[in-house]
Amino acid sequence: MDTATAPALLYEQIAQHYLGAIRSGALQPGARMPSVRTLTQLHSVSLSTALQACRWLEDQGWLEARPRAGYYVRRPQRMALPPSSEPPARIDATQYLGIHERVSDFIARCELHPVRVNFANAYGSPDAYPAAALTRAATHVLRQHPDLLVTPVPPHGDAGFRSVLARRALDAGMRLTPDDIVVTHGCTEAMNLALRAVTQPGDMVAVESPTFFGLLQILQSLGLRSIEIPTSPQTGISVEALSLALQTQPDIRAVVVVPHFQNPLGSVMPDANKAALAALCAQHDVALIEDDTYAALGDDATPLRALKSWDDHGAIIHCASLHKILAPGMRLGWISGGRWHARIRMLKYAQSRPNDTLAQRSVADYLGSAAYDRHLARLRRLLRTRREQVAEAIATHFPAGTRLTVPHGGMLLWLQLPPLRRNATVFETALREGVRIAPGHIFSNSERYNDYIRLNSSIPFDTQAVSALQRLAEIVRSQLA
Amino acid sequence: MDTATAPALLYEQIAQHYLGAIRSGALQPGARMPSVRTLTQLHSVSLSTALQACRWLEDQGWLEARPRAGYYVRRPQRMALPPSSEPPARIDATQYLGIHERVSDFIARCELHPVRVNFANAYGSPDAYPAAALTRAATHVLRQHPDLLVTPVPPHGDAGFRSVLARRALDAGMRLTPDDIVVTHGCTEAMNLALRAVTQPGDMVAVESPTFFGLLQILQSLGLRSIEIPTSPQTGISVEALSLALQTQPDIRAVVVVPHFQNPLGSVMPDANKAALAALCAQHDVALIEDDTYAALGDDATPLRALKSWDDHGAIIHCASLHKILAPGMRLGWISGGRWHARIRMLKYAQSRPNDTLAQRSVADYLGSAAYDRHLARLRRLLRTRREQVAEAIATHFPAGTRLTVPHGGMLLWLQLPPLRRNATVFETALREGVRIAPGHIFSNSERYNDYIRLNSSIPFDTQAVSALQRLAEIVRSQLA
Ligand SMILES: Cc1ncc(COP(=O)(O)O)c(C=O)c1O
Ligand SMILES: Cc1ncc(COP(=O)(O)O)c(C=O)c1O
Repeated sequence: MDTATAPALLYEQIAQHYLGAIRSGALQPGARMPSVRTLTQLHSVSLSTALQACRWLEDQGWLEARPRAGYYVRRPQRMALPPSSEPPARIDATQYLGIHERVSDFIARCELHPVRVNFANAYGSPDAYPAAALTRAATHVLRQHPDLLVTPVPPHGDAGFRSVLARRALDAGMRLTPDDIVVTHGCTEAMNLALRAVTQPGDMVAVESPTFFGLLQILQSLGLRSIEIPTSPQTGISVEALSLALQTQPDIRAVVVVPHFQNPLGSVMPDANKAALAALCAQHDVALIEDDTYAALGDDATPLRALKSWDDHGAIIHCASLHKILAPGMRLGWISGGRWHARIRMLKYAQSRPNDTLAQRSVADYLGSAAYDRHLARLRRLLRTRREQVAEAIATHFPAGTRLTVPHGGMLLWLQLPPLRRNATVFETALREGVRIAPGHIFSNSERYNDYIRLNSSIPFDTQAVSALQRLAEIVRSQLA
Repeated sequence: MDTATAPALLYEQIAQHYLGAIRSGALQPGARMPSVRTLTQLHSVSLSTALQACRWLEDQGWLEARPRAGYYVRRPQRMALPPSSEPPARIDATQYLGIHERVSDFIARCELHPVRVNFANAYGSPDAYPAAALTRAATHVLRQHPDLLVTPVPPHGDAGFRSVLARRALDAGMRLTPDDIVVTHGCTEAMNLALRAVTQPGDMVAVESPTFFGLLQILQSLGLRSIEIPTSPQTGISVEALSLALQTQPDIRAVVVVPHFQNPLGSVMPDANKAALAALCAQHDVALIEDDTYAALGDDATPLRALKSWDDHGAIIHCASLHKILAPGMRLGWISGGRWHARIRMLKYAQSRPNDTLAQRSVADYLGSAAYDRHLARLRRLLRTRREQVAEAIATHFPAGTRLTVPHGGMLLWLQLPPLRRNATVFETALREGVRIAPGHIFSNSERYNDYIRLNSSIPFDTQAVSALQRLAEIVRSQLA
């Protein structure tokens, strides 16, 4: 609003300003209108102009005056417009230039349709996690620390949380002190920090193929190029292929690997491969970034050795989080940065400051307790049961030619479908019907996985899930080449 | 540890591994040692080798066996080493290459010494905020939503929180819908996203001089160059000087401004300057990024009009947070990205995923209530009282030649000292004595502010604070040129 125009129209301008706010939903029915005094100050107008604006809005039926309380937005039936939001199906890919249009388009598109059955995410369903224990713990922390929410957060994360993470890391063969750990907003922020610490825009990063689409998006948004290394559904990244790439591509500065229950494949690297990979990266002086967010989810409770446990030169960065294994709603992750640790600490400070304390304190005691081990045991069983149920339903309903390696842990199934006419149609048709899946083409920059889809097998296996799978199978059938 | 060496030494290697963990603090006194069964799997050894390792550690006094519970780390008096941490005063600036060595060095150095009196941060002290009300609200949310902590977080932030932010934004003259807002981890993350959305590495960004050191660090860590525009302690950035810069520097892609209670100056831009600035940036097609985190802290309760309220072309990005005004411990901020909003949403997804819900829900109701307005009124009075007390103490104790413009809001005082021999000595001497201040040189890439310091005037004005100010004054005196 331009306050410099003719005073005769001023009250109308002010009224129009607030009318727009009411129409757009910024001022919702029942909300208090700024006081007349506030209006005079905000718009540099006289009391009578401000009053005139309010009276006009009242006359038009937009406001109601409440005695001694000022003006309130009425709850009018005739024009109850919802807040504007983006119209369905109008996604402008140019908005995502440099943020991986293919992946961004998938993420944005998912939001356009209400979801009934979600096979697209990579978290267990809420019933798989110890909600009551976490809620109790958080309530307890709030009671114990009455000033927690108003006290500036400590650097690098809560000391108690980092201690218990260091202790748990021992089970994966890593010897870390609490100071070797920085708490982050999930594995996603950890990966951003790791990549920012060891690369410059323009550098090349070797990744598994197929790989977690979030990683492809992170890489491109940081101006990094990626090179995809063949990866086996059984044993993970091919160390031989990577070795060749390192010999021929001198621009590779980092390798990112998900050693355990890789997303989307579900592969687990044998220890011998992990040792060879660590040695190969050390030999080429290339940073090795380990994303180990699924490690605890094996059907077999045997602890898996982290890549980082082979780190002799501080050249392996370990990233992980609690979203898959303990608390999808808490956004807690961490990073141990090897020789780049001080750098990563500072990048974390510059990027988002240290994490707030409540979530960290809330999980710290639980993570140190035997209850956590019991939760993991239950979670493993539940994931396994549901995975087998979904795999069986797929075998029953999907067309001949569908292929599937069922992993020995985690919650993801990577389905190879028979050749399709138009891959994107399967995703889009299902989406419109409220069934979300992750289409194969977002797991790579190539076209290699166009006939694949990734399904979350951890959702409750109820009639809704089964009929969604059947419907999916029909859609696939309708698109067979 | 290499598992391929002679079996005769295996148990010793394993024992040494865990001994190292105990010594480094990764396995702390009282912690449970991994079970013998776990050791066999983790190190691929036989049961007897694993047992031998544990027995050796027990013999050496490091572990104790508890019946049916396994081995635990003893609480030995003789070698209770604390976890390793970086040795004081050994800061290696090369770690911070590209993350603003000057600012990073300040941040890292602050951590090396325990703090008694902290004048260096930019938050009110905990007693300035409604701790009990926030704690009650968080407890209430946890009770109302038993599955909150285990449910994946919604995109862009909690709808209720974004609604109330949109409503409150009206008081600052902005007409936003909830969809125009993305919740972030503080203003820091918001600034990162804004800059990433509108610039490419190598671009130039115009900033106030002096400016918030965190911004200088963000800019350099993103590979951006900065150009410093003269800024008045009274009226903020010089629009004339910026205009000149825009004419002569075609690489400028964005301007970042703190219009209200600028950090460190405390300046407030008059509305005419804000309008002129908005018009100037529009004319040059340069993004204008507004960091408005202090707006509510004026001595006078008059709402201040956000720069964004002059946004006709979607070219102004508004960033703010709750740390200064409501909850230093909650790390809640937000961004409204104008024409780059879809891009910013996606960058937020790629950088750290949406914020967790608990904190947002906890503050949403409070922000919408009259209790929040009462809190702000109290906070304003408290900040003003303390600011005047500290300013008076400075006038009493600091040497002649000290200059100070006392702002009309906020919590920061920007002191110009008489010329000093070695500026850094004041900061370092005070730091060693447990008194943290922010030295002037971190607020610029130039040497212009070497004789300045920034003090937080909001800490309780008790005898400790007064004697710290007196001591500071002495240190300054000892360094006069
Ligand atoms: C391999 C991998 N890394 C990282 C993430 C994201 O982790 P977070 O939710 O902790 O940010 C995922 C989640 O899908 C993942 O599968
Ligand atoms: C101008 C300015 N912007 C941003 C910040 C950081 O804000 P937040 O704590 O919300 O990340 C500060 C805090 O010192 C500040 O003074």
